[in-house]
Formats: sequence, C-alpha cells, structure tokens
Amino acid sequence: MRVRDVGEFPLIARLGGIVGRRRVDVVVGIGDDAAALDLGGEELLLLTVDSQVEGVHFVLDRIPPRLLGRRLLAVNASDIAAMGGEPTHALVSLVLPPELELDWLEELYRGLGEEGDRLGAAVVGGNVARSGDGVVLDLTLAGRVPQGELLTRAGARPGDAVLVTGTLGGAAAGLWLREHPEADVPYRDALLTRHLAPTPRVREGRAIAASRLATAMIDLSDGLGSDVLHVCDQSGVGVRVYVENLPLTPGVPHVANLSGRAPWELALYGGEDFELLFTAPPSAADALRERLAALGTAVTPVGEVLPPSEGRWLVLPDGRPVPLEGRGFTHF
Amino acid sequence: MRVRDVGEFPLIARLGGIVGRRRVDVVVGIGDDAAALDLGGEELLLLTVDSQVEGVHFVLDRIPPRLLGRRLLAVNASDIAAMGGEPTHALVSLVLPPELELDWLEELYRGLGEEGDRLGAAVVGGNVARSGDGVVLDLTLAGRVPQGELLTRAGARPGDAVLVTGTLGGAAAGLWLREHPEADVPYRDALLTRHLAPTPRVREGRAIAASRLATAMIDLSDGLGSDVLHVCDQSGVGVRVYVENLPLTPGVPHVANLSGRAPWELALYGGEDFELLFTAPPSAADALRERLAALGTAVTPVGEVLPPSEGRWLVLPDGRPVPLEGRGFTHF
Repeated sequence: MRVRDVGEFPLIARLGGIVGRRRVDVVVGIGDDAAALDLGGEELLLLTVDSQVEGVHFVLDRIPPRLLGRRLLAVNASDIAAMGGEPTHALVSLVLPPELELDWLEELYRGLGEEGDRLGAAVVGGNVARSGDGVVLDLTLAGRVPQGELLTRAGARPGDAVLVTGTLGGAAAGLWLREHPEADVPYRDALLTRHLAPTPRVREGRAIAASRLATAMIDLSDGLGSDVLHVCDQSGVGVRVYVENLPLTPGVPHVANLSGRAPWELALYGGEDFELLFTAPPSAADALRERLAALGTAVTPVGEVLPPSEGRWLVLPDGRPVPLEGRGFTHF
Repeated sequence: MRVRDVGEFPLIARLGGIVGRRRVDVVVGIGDDAAALDLGGEELLLLTVDSQVEGVHFVLDRIPPRLLGRRLLAVNASDIAAMGGEPTHALVSLVLPPELELDWLEELYRGLGEEGDRLGAAVVGGNVARSGDGVVLDLTLAGRVPQGELLTRAGARPGDAVLVTGTLGGAAAGLWLREHPEADVPYRDALLTRHLAPTPRVREGRAIAASRLATAMIDLSDGLGSDVLHVCDQSGVGVRVYVENLPLTPGVPHVANLSGRAPWELALYGGEDFELLFTAPPSAADALRERLAALGTAVTPVGEVLPPSEGRWLVLPDGRPVPLEGRGFTHF
C-alpha cells in the first residue's frame, strides 16, 4: 500500500498510533491544530508546524517572496489562534536548491519579519539544507495560552451553536482570480489579498478563549465542510450546517457566477480562509458576538451541534438536508 | 547572487539580521545549536529543528527506514544535548511523494518511537504535505535545561582546555565502509553503526552542564575542524588543536590507511560523530573526566583556548602549526 491510498487524515492517525510514548505533560498531542504542553507555569506551551512546498503550495514565479514569508508565518499563527493562544517564537527550516536567488530568500525573510512584528512573534532559529529539487519551507511556531483557556477540537456538545468569524470563500475566489486575470469582478484586490496574504485570527481566538464561553475551536484551512468534521470526530458529535447562513466574502457571488459554482461551494470547500470555527452554548452567542465586534470582527452562527446518532448534515438553500462529506483540500 | 555563492553560515547570519524582532524572553536566538527561551519557570525551553533530505542526507534504498527514524530524532537530540539539555517533545513534518510505500513510513515512525522511548521524548504533533519530488523529513525538538546550567557556543575563555567526549572519525569511517563493502577491517559493524545510528550524548551533556564547570559546548556534526571554529566565533577567542590528541574510534586507522587519508583527517573533517566538544578551565578537567567516566564515557583534552589575537591553529603530528580552516561538511 502507498501513502496516497491511505488518505491524509487516516495516515496521521496511523502514524500517531505508532509513536506511542505518552508524557504526563502532554495535554494535547497529535491530531489537533497544535500540541499543548503543561511545563508547570501558568500558561500552556503550544507547538505547531506547517510547510509550504514549491509546486504544491506555491509556484516560485507567481507569489512575491515577501508575501510567501508572511503567509508561512500566518498559516501557523492560525493554528495557534485555533487553540486560543498567541504566537511567540518561530523556527524556520529551509530546504533550498543552491542556485536559488539570494534576493528571493532575503525578501522571504523580510515578509517573515513583518508578520512576526505584527504578531509579536520572533524568529529564534532554524536550519538550512540543500535541496535535491525545489524549495521546501517548514515553520515551527510556539505559542502560549493561559491554563484553563485552551480550546481544542474536542469539547463541542449537542445543542451548541456553530459559529464562524469573518467571511468565507474569499481565498478561493482570490485563487480563481489569479488564474483568470481578465475577469472583471468587484472587490478584486481584497479577494486577491485573502488568497495571497491571509490574516490569522489571533486576537479573535484569544478573545474567544478568554471568554471561557466556547467549547471547541478549529481554524478553517481546508474548508469549513471538511474542518467542521474534525470537530465532530474529536468531540464525538453530529452537526447541521445551514448553507444559507454561511457569511460570504464580498465579491464571492460574482466569482462563483463566473466560475459556474454556487457561492456556498466556494465558502464550504474552497479552503484557506483561515477564519475560526467554534462552538458555544446558544445562550453565549450574543456575548461572544459582542466581544468580537469590539475587535471589528463579525461572528455568524452557521449551524448547530447534534447528538452523534443524528449524523452530520448540510442544509441546502432549498431546505433539503444532504449528508456532509469532507471535500476540502487534502494532500493525499 | 545565488544561495550557493554565500555559503551556509554567512547565509544564516544574513537571514538572522533580517528578522530583527527581539523578545526579552529569548536567551539564545539564531546561531547556536538550539534556541533557549525563558518562559518564567525554573527551566529554560530549548527548541531546535533539523532536516533529512532524500538525495542529500540519505538515499531511500540504502538506509533502513527504522534507522532513519532513529537518526532523525538522534541528530536533533544532539543539538539539545549541546546546550546541556534533555529532549522532551518532537514535531515531525513530512513532505512525501504520494507513491511512497506506507510500510516505509511506518518503519520510520517505529524508529522514531524507539529513539523517543530511549531518550524520554514524545512525538506530539507534525504535519503531512505532498512532495513535488523526493522525501523531506523535518523534526523539531523541544527540550529543557535548568536555569543557570545552559551552555552555549559563547563563553570559552583563553586558557580553557578544549575537551571532547568519546571518539572521533567513526562515522566517516562507517560511511566509507558502506561504499566499500569489500574492505576487510576490524570493528566494521561498530563503525557502520556510528554512521547509521548515531547515539546523541544527552546524558553526557546533562552531566557536563550540571557540573557548572564548563564554559562553552557544541555538538560535532560537521566535524571538529569546522565546529570548533563556531565556538571561536561566538566566544571571540582563538584555539590550538593538537592532531595527535584526537581520540580515534577503533578501526579508524585501518579505514584511513585503506582510503589513503591520515586518521586525523577522518577525525577532524569527517563529521557526523555527534560527540560533544566543550571548554573548561584546566583545573576542572579532572572533575569533568570523573563525572563522565561514571557514565562510561571518556573525555579527552584535544587543545586549548587562546586569546583572539593568537589565532586558530592546528598542530600537526610533527609539531608544525598550520592555520585551522573550516573544511567540514557545509550545504552550500
């Protein structure tokens, strides 16, 4: 059997089962947005790693290296945000072809530095190795979250509301616009920015966690339609998501129209919006909405958590329920 | 200018200068074996990352994946050991071609698990991404060291003795034996093991650090002739290394003879021995030797730290001093 026959998420579960050692200081291990470790202080240490692979995540000539550097840090910060934490320290592992232009690499680091300054995170180390072929960038990000404020994918309870920050579908629409530069669409620049330079919801994640009102959280990297299923898996619950409630990024309906898809398909399966999805008792939804409104960020209820026996459903615009299936981006 | 025109170590310094943000909790940042962070407890957090790249560090068919998994964790643990710390938690980033055999990957993880069990470190997370071409394995390792016991590359003082643990040249001799399977040499298996499955000197590093007698430390990954220069750079000192004092791994003289090199060339420039080099006042050398003898590990004085104005020298077997130049492995 080959890696592609297993699929990304079963593969992770399988490998996690092999490295069996448990340490008592591991609060959250393999299978969430970040690991959480209790090293004895008032805060938990968060650790996450993510890579950007040439030819898979980016094309060398098509993304300015400065934006790629920002993005490399941003996507990891989104994982820290999803645990309710703030990013603090980064390590960067570079696998590089020797003929790579130094200017390109220095611009990448300027982007890393800019995003680090914005987030309050410092690059404190890394590694450089020669590549056989192509650029591989790996960033490990440490963060912290106060004890008692950690949010994981587990913890959602039947009856909870499913809420999302901001708007969805913008990154997918921006990707489409890059591939269709001739398309005349409003909000073009904003959509391209959503695709190229995502903004991790760190302040929002902290506010949600500090409220102690939410029960589970995840960041939307693969697409809500896929990511909400991780919450269901880890929490042992079902879910109902209302397609009509999905908050669309301005311009998404236009791109959807031009590209022959329904707007909600972009919002549900496009991925890379890096918004936060979280669950909370319906009685807490107003308080959470107010807290995030103070940061200028909308919160939208998009569904509800069900008992596990009631399954996982998508309610289409015509009111028809269909089974919710993972169709977001996976690597295998 | 291209990456290969800059060289590995100037490149790291250059990139470190770009990501300029400093945090007050960063005790050691870019440019040592690991970063050291003061998060407020009685121990410092150590973080390091290292990669194994197919075609550069390993050939897929030539190293059993289980050994590669052990090695991936071991080389990072050596960096933690060099700071006086013990490894605790690992993240693994996998960049994999979809057609990779699952068996291979599972064996890799068994090796990771074995080495983790041996060292007391747990794999707590990671990432999986599709590769354009070839396998890239990145491991981030966290560790800890008590406040006040941290050892860095800085701190060596003129007059200090230069000491090394164990023996040198064995990994390079093992590599040569893999390429010359017909060679009839004593200690063959032990030399192959030194090459394929290095043992990081974690207990030794902890003992040296806990003694509070040493002034600087580094692990020998590129080769003593290159690595000792990092101590000189970071400590602002000169050095004199006596070739005749280098402790040779049994069998190294035989391989040197067959391969037409001097034994000390293998010890000085072969690399990947993953022993520790450290400095300490000569008056402390006996106490340090006793502490490591209790662990079954030899300590050998190989030279002395000089004032910076006196330069960096290698004393050849005939007593002739020659300038010490970095000739170990570099990626660019």
